[in-house]
Amino acid sequence: MVHVSSSTARERFARAMRTLRQTKGLSQEDLAERAGLHRNYIGSVERGERNVGIDNLERIAQALETELIDLIGRSD
Amino acid sequence: MVHVSSSTARERFARAMRTLRQTKGLSQEDLAERAGLHRNYIGSVERGERNVGIDNLERIAQALETELIDLIGRSD
Repeated sequence: MVHVSSSTARERFARAMRTLRQTKGLSQEDLAERAGLHRNYIGSVERGERNVGIDNLERIAQALETELIDLIGRSD
Repeated sequence: MVHVSSSTARERFARAMRTLRQTKGLSQEDLAERAGLHRNYIGSVERGERNVGIDNLERIAQALETELIDLIGRSD
């Protein structure tokens, strides 16, 4: 059976952001504070519920000390 | 004199999107049609006037037949 998963950029960003946050031992609250965003907002982004604007995408990447493109990755 | 230019992701995306569109010989109208977006919207994105959501960033990249990360690039 061929498993074809085509993820959206939104889903990939949400997953990668959560993984890196946890790897760094940061809570959503820690990340929100670093990024100057609200904790609830961070949570909803991680759940893929937000069509995040490019400015906030960049703020989150900077707060995680990584490049934005490393959180977005390539489409499958 | 050290010239330090730090571009934002928004500026890099706007520049790269316009360059690739022109390289492909597409008008803003052509690109808008491919992406299912309005021509004026495409123009304002190219001028860096829009905090474009990740879903539309991806639609524009797909319409230009490229990867989103290739339009965003790395921060300086």
